[in-house]
Amino acid sequence: MNVTEAITARKSVRAYLDTPVPADVLEKIVEAGRWAPNAGPIQLSVVRNAELRKKINDVTLDAMAHSGIEFLRQRAALPGYQPLYDAPVLILISGPVTIPISAVNAAVSAENMLLQATGAGLGSCFLLSLTLAFDGADGSDLLQKAGIPDGYRVQCAVIVGYAAPESKFTTGERTIKGAVSYID
Amino acid sequence: MNVTEAITARKSVRAYLDTPVPADVLEKIVEAGRWAPNAGPIQLSVVRNAELRKKINDVTLDAMAHSGIEFLRQRAALPGYQPLYDAPVLILISGPVTIPISAVNAAVSAENMLLQATGAGLGSCFLLSLTLAFDGADGSDLLQKAGIPDGYRVQCAVIVGYAAPESKFTTGERTIKGAVSYID
Repeated sequence: MNVTEAITARKSVRAYLDTPVPADVLEKIVEAGRWAPNAGPIQLSVVRNAELRKKINDVTLDAMAHSGIEFLRQRAALPGYQPLYDAPVLILISGPVTIPISAVNAAVSAENMLLQATGAGLGSCFLLSLTLAFDGADGSDLLQKAGIPDGYRVQCAVIVGYAAPESKFTTGERTIKGAVSYID
Repeated sequence: MNVTEAITARKSVRAYLDTPVPADVLEKIVEAGRWAPNAGPIQLSVVRNAELRKKINDVTLDAMAHSGIEFLRQRAALPGYQPLYDAPVLILISGPVTIPISAVNAAVSAENMLLQATGAGLGSCFLLSLTLAFDGADGSDLLQKAGIPDGYRVQCAVIVGYAAPESKFTTGERTIKGAVSYID
């Protein structure tokens, strides 16, 4: 798939099949994250472990429900809603809390992985709400289980897997966003 | 160019030819920025105007020199250093200051544009230091000239153009970054 096609085909997939992601495909996705323009260290933790994914999912769901942020509270209240959408692979992207641009470093790596996954025919989704789980009371336990280095924060995450035919949690039609002005 | 090639070929180009970027190529780069996974509004300001680019360049250079950040101070002190590297096109990516994730929204859009530019055979570079210019004393004037809406902050930027054969400001060998761990 050429780069333009990958950019326009990429969308937020919110329902996944059980089918595992082949190891070589996953390695290429992770490698794509490492080729991003990072000005500072990042850590990619690739969580295939089902128990840990469920734990992160459940803590995130609870944190969303109690976040005080109306959009997140409403999402968490939807029947059957799971923040990790049962994806078979979760990739956590973390960076040092002492570096203000860690969030930006993580985001550009995430985008590379989303596009590489799209090119490989996989569904994917960029996740931010799960940072609530790692920043909350259960955070230090989750950080340890996920192998995040001391002093690092989970800045964002990506889920990947084979897309299920239908998702009841898709938030809307896929449209192009962003206003543009030319200053000539 | 396929998506994997674009991801691995993308690099930070810090010297540009005068050659203008064709309008249709630039429009595709800008459109790529609008297809990113943004959870909130962003504004893309495409600055081709030479006078405004020079003003932003000069204010950034001064801000870097007085930033108190040693790395930025050292870069600014390099003979002939120009923060915008004389690129013919500067794309400012801004988002509302009231949305905490505006920086992340801007970053994923930036990465899309960098990859689209790479696929089109153009050089590009992700810029963060120029946010100093817009956040500083001359900021409101620059924001107005660049057509940035009220309440928006320039979160990051991308420069694009045809790469010059050599750059004396390249910071080091292009290497893959980011530590990886698998949690199975």
